[in-house]
Formats: sequence, C-alpha cells, structure tokens
Amino acid sequence: MDSIVKPAIRPAIIKDLDAIWQLWKDITAQKAYFPYDESYTREQIEAAWINLDNLIGIAEVNRTVAGAYIVKPNQPGYGSHVANAAYMVATSFRGQGIGKQLCAHSLEAAKAAGYRAMQFNLVVSTNTAAIKAWEAFGFKRIGIIPEGFYQDGPGYVDAYIFHRFL
Amino acid sequence: MDSIVKPAIRPAIIKDLDAIWQLWKDITAQKAYFPYDESYTREQIEAAWINLDNLIGIAEVNRTVAGAYIVKPNQPGYGSHVANAAYMVATSFRGQGIGKQLCAHSLEAAKAAGYRAMQFNLVVSTNTAAIKAWEAFGFKRIGIIPEGFYQDGPGYVDAYIFHRFL
Repeated sequence: MDSIVKPAIRPAIIKDLDAIWQLWKDITAQKAYFPYDESYTREQIEAAWINLDNLIGIAEVNRTVAGAYIVKPNQPGYGSHVANAAYMVATSFRGQGIGKQLCAHSLEAAKAAGYRAMQFNLVVSTNTAAIKAWEAFGFKRIGIIPEGFYQDGPGYVDAYIFHRFL
Repeated sequence: MDSIVKPAIRPAIIKDLDAIWQLWKDITAQKAYFPYDESYTREQIEAAWINLDNLIGIAEVNRTVAGAYIVKPNQPGYGSHVANAAYMVATSFRGQGIGKQLCAHSLEAAKAAGYRAMQFNLVVSTNTAAIKAWEAFGFKRIGIIPEGFYQDGPGYVDAYIFHRFL
C-alpha cells in the first residue's frame, strides 16, 4: 500500500494563487482526466476557478503546495445549492492519499458553506481510480454522457455524473 | 391547438445584444425554469452567455425579437464537442411554436458548427412541456439530479439531464 502523508489543509489566500495556477498548468499538460486543455489562459481559469469567491483548500507538506481543491456552485441561482469541485495533486505527491484527504476536507468545507450536495459533471469512464474513490466517499452515479469526453489515445469515451448529498 | 407563427431565425449580431439581454431579464424575472435569478449583472451574463463567441440565433416576427437561442460548449476542452443551449421566447410570443422552431434551428446550427451532441444540464422535472418537447426532438434523459433545482413554490425538485447526438 502507498504510504500516507498527512498534509496540512487550509483555506487558500491570495498569495497561494500563483502556486495553484502552476498546479493547474502541470495537470492540464498531462492531458489526463481534466477537461481543460492547455489553450486556456490564466485569466480565463481565474474567472472560472482560481479565485477567492470559490472555496479553495490548499494541502501543504513541509510548506510546499502538494495539492488543492476548488469548490464552487455547479449551477447558478436556483441550482447553486449543489456544489462542484476540482481536485489537483502535484505529480511528486501522488499515491500518498492526498487526493482523498482533499476530498474529505472539501466535503466538510462545502457542507459548512451551506451547500446541500456535491456533483461531478464529467468523470471519465476510464478513470477507474477516481470512480472507486468517489464511490468510497458515498457518491452515486446519477448519469452517463455517451462519448462525453475526448481522451488522448482512446478518443471519445463515456463520462459519468456523480452526486452525493452533504 | 395554438396557432403557429413562422419567425425569421437568423444569427445574432452585436446590435441584437441589448434585445437579448432584455429577453433574459424578462425571463429571469418570471422565476420559472431558468437557473439564473435576478441577481446576475449584465456583465456576468455577457461573459457566460450573451456574447458572439457563442452561437446565437434570433427569432424575429415583424422585425420584433420574439425569441433567441444561445449555443455554447457544455464543457471546456475535452468536453467541448458537446453543446449546451438556452432558449428564450418573449412572453407575448408564447404558445405559437417559436420555441420549437428555435430548438430545430439550434440543432442544425450546432451540428454545422461541428458539435457532436447537445446536452441540457438542468431540466426542471416539473417542466412537463419542456420535457415533452425535448423528447419529441430525440433527446434522451441520461441523468437525474435529486433535488437539483430550487423552484419558487414547491422548493427543491429533481432536475433531469437530457442529451442527443447531432
């Protein structure tokens, strides 16, 4: 089993935003299971994700940013009681349980912020590790988008929608 | 049966954006089946919806804007081959088949623009007219979000996700 590192998870402040953007860029460069490709500018990503109107948690190990979560409303207005989230773990900190600790922390933080549920809109069907993790956290698959994700290599694959109440 | 009006549907140009914003404001003020409430500024709505990076079609009857559709990617990057759309019909032009003509036009326009599918993320389960219309257009319900929409009156109700290939 992978060793478990216990990071300190705390709310992000403005001076963390550079590190979060670096994390975002590293992850999109890997063309893995993130819908965003490398064509998006920092300005675009800050408008949608990396800003302090969202609920951002930072995982630090020895004062280095090892990962982050970003929680925001999944829909505007009358759908905004359901949260959405993105999770990022730096390559050098993978396989140490940090993603799951970020997920657990984000669910508590989202609930404390008044959200009633959490939803993931585009979980790639080939991402078995993530699917297993979300199910272990009590998420239910509430939908399947046929060929909803274009994956480098296999091409169009199904994407799943996961949801749980908080 | 309601009478059928045959509007002229054409791509929007910059000078139409004021009329589309008026339409948006009228519809959000009705607190019906649109997730956006009245708290959103024109700037916010222009960033997300009412801009000419999106595919906007205008329905005109006697040179009056009777309705509009806005088609945009449902997800960024590797999910951007699936379109999303919003439809608006002015109150005084309801019940005349304009919504369905906008839908038919938008599906053609989305296909011509290279989208592979269309998805609606938050169809209110109590909106039986819309559900019937989407099904008639070949959309399949691919997901259910439990209590995904807060509706004025009933409170939290389920929301459906609809999808069809183009």
